[in-house]
Amino acid sequence: MSRLFVIKIGGNVLDNPASQERFLKTFAAMNEPRILVHGGGKIATRIGDQLGIESRYVNGRRITDEATRDVVTMVYGGLVNKQIVASLQAMGCNAIGLTGADGNSIAAVKRPAGDTDFGYVGDVRAAGVNTTLLTRLLNDKLVPVFAPLTHADGVMLNTNADTIASVVAVSLSRAYKVRLVYCFEKKGVLKDVNDPESVIPYLPRSLYHELLGANALADGILPKLENAYAAIEAGVSEVLIGDAEDLSLNTAERTEGTLITA
Amino acid sequence: MSRLFVIKIGGNVLDNPASQERFLKTFAAMNEPRILVHGGGKIATRIGDQLGIESRYVNGRRITDEATRDVVTMVYGGLVNKQIVASLQAMGCNAIGLTGADGNSIAAVKRPAGDTDFGYVGDVRAAGVNTTLLTRLLNDKLVPVFAPLTHADGVMLNTNADTIASVVAVSLSRAYKVRLVYCFEKKGVLKDVNDPESVIPYLPRSLYHELLGANALADGILPKLENAYAAIEAGVSEVLIGDAEDLSLNTAERTEGTLITA
Repeated sequence: MSRLFVIKIGGNVLDNPASQERFLKTFAAMNEPRILVHGGGKIATRIGDQLGIESRYVNGRRITDEATRDVVTMVYGGLVNKQIVASLQAMGCNAIGLTGADGNSIAAVKRPAGDTDFGYVGDVRAAGVNTTLLTRLLNDKLVPVFAPLTHADGVMLNTNADTIASVVAVSLSRAYKVRLVYCFEKKGVLKDVNDPESVIPYLPRSLYHELLGANALADGILPKLENAYAAIEAGVSEVLIGDAEDLSLNTAERTEGTLITA
Repeated sequence: MSRLFVIKIGGNVLDNPASQERFLKTFAAMNEPRILVHGGGKIATRIGDQLGIESRYVNGRRITDEATRDVVTMVYGGLVNKQIVASLQAMGCNAIGLTGADGNSIAAVKRPAGDTDFGYVGDVRAAGVNTTLLTRLLNDKLVPVFAPLTHADGVMLNTNADTIASVVAVSLSRAYKVRLVYCFEKKGVLKDVNDPESVIPYLPRSLYHELLGANALADGILPKLENAYAAIEAGVSEVLIGDAEDLSLNTAERTEGTLITA
C-alpha cells in the first residue's frame, strides 16, 4: 500500500503568518500523497466581532447560530482556505480547496439538539467521506485542502477540524497506509508537563496504558490520545502529534514529535 | 462533440433568494455537462461596509485594495460559493466549488497598474484555463461552480465573472460544443429598449450588423454583444442572453432569450 499523510493544522500555525509560511513550505516540499485539514484560528472570532456577531459558548464549545455559520463559511471556506491554496500553488503544490459540500466530499448530519443546541454544527463519520472522489483527486496528483465545514440538507455546517482529519484518515486507510498528523502547540506528548523538551518519541498502546496506570500523563492530552488510538483501531497506521515547525513530515522513519501506533 | 453549457449568473439572481432557488432548481435538473460561474452581487459591498471597508470606484469599476480583496475572497469564495454548492448538492447536483486557485484551474496575471491601479484584480485568457482538470471533473460527472476569483504569485485576485465564463467557454470549445449563457436582468436583446417583451429570438452576426447600421440597438447591450461575438469567433458555438428565470436551459432547440451564433 502506498503511504498517505493526513495533516491537521490549527490556530497556532494559522494565526502566525511566519509559522504558516514555514509550515506550508515544508508541506509543499513533500513528495507523498497528502491531504491538509485546517482549523479556523482566531480570525473568525475577530471578523465576527467586527460584524457585531457575538460568539456564544457553552462549556467552551461555540454555538453556531445562523449569523455565526455565515461567518465561519466566509472565513474558513473563503479567506483561510483560499489563502492557503494560493500560497501552496505559488510553491508548486497543486492544492485544491474543499469543504464537505464540494463534490459531496464529506456528508454530515446536523447535530441533534440535546441539553444544548449547538446550532449549525456537523457530525461526521468515516462512512460519510467520499473516498472515490478523494482517491481520484490524489491519483491526479492534486492535494486536497479541507476547511472545517461540512453540509447536510442544503446548508453548511461548522465542523471540528480534528474530527474531519480523523474521519478522512480512517476512511482512506483501506486504500493507503495512513499517517495522521496533528500539529499542536507542544513538541509532542510530554513525560513532564513542565518540561517542554521531555517529548515521548514513541508511544505504542502498551506504554500508554503503563503511563496511564502510573498517572504520568497530563489530563489535557488524554482526549487527544484517546482519539489517536480510536483512529488506529479504525485502521490508521500511525498518528503523529507535535509542533508543526519541528515535524519532519517527509521522513517516514525518524520524526520529531510523538509517534503513536497500535 | 458532446454539448457543454457554461452559465453565468449575476446579481439579479444572487441578491434575491427566491430567484436564486428557482434558478438553481432549473440548473440542478439539467442533464448535460455544465459549469456555473457566479458573480458576487451586492453582499460583498454590504459586508465590506459592515467591516468599515470603503468601496472605491474609478469609472464605475471597483478598486480592489488588500482589505477589499480579503472581503471578496471571503464572500465570493466562501459565503456565496458554498451556499450555492450546498444548495445544489441538496438538489442532487454534484457541484464542486472552485476559484481559479483551486487545482490551478485558472491562472491569471495581476492587472498592471496603468493610469489607474485597480489593485488585486486578475486578467485571464483562455490559455490560462486548466482544461485537463475541468475535463476530468466533467467526466467524473462533477459540476464545477466558479467564484469570480483567480490567483497569481500566491495571492487571490478579484476577477470579472463574465470574463471567467467567456474564457472557460472558449478554452473548452475544442472538446465540446459549448453554449455560453449570460443570465441578465432583461429577457434578451430587445428590439425596442422600452418594450421588455420585444426580444430578438435569434441574432446571427449578419442581423447584428444590419441592426447596428440602422442604430437599432441600445448602447448598453453593445459591449455584451461584442463579447458574445468574440467568444463565437474564438470557438464557442452559441451564446444565449436572457433572464435566468425564463431560460429553458435544458432545451437545445427552442429557448427563451436571444440566441447568438456566427
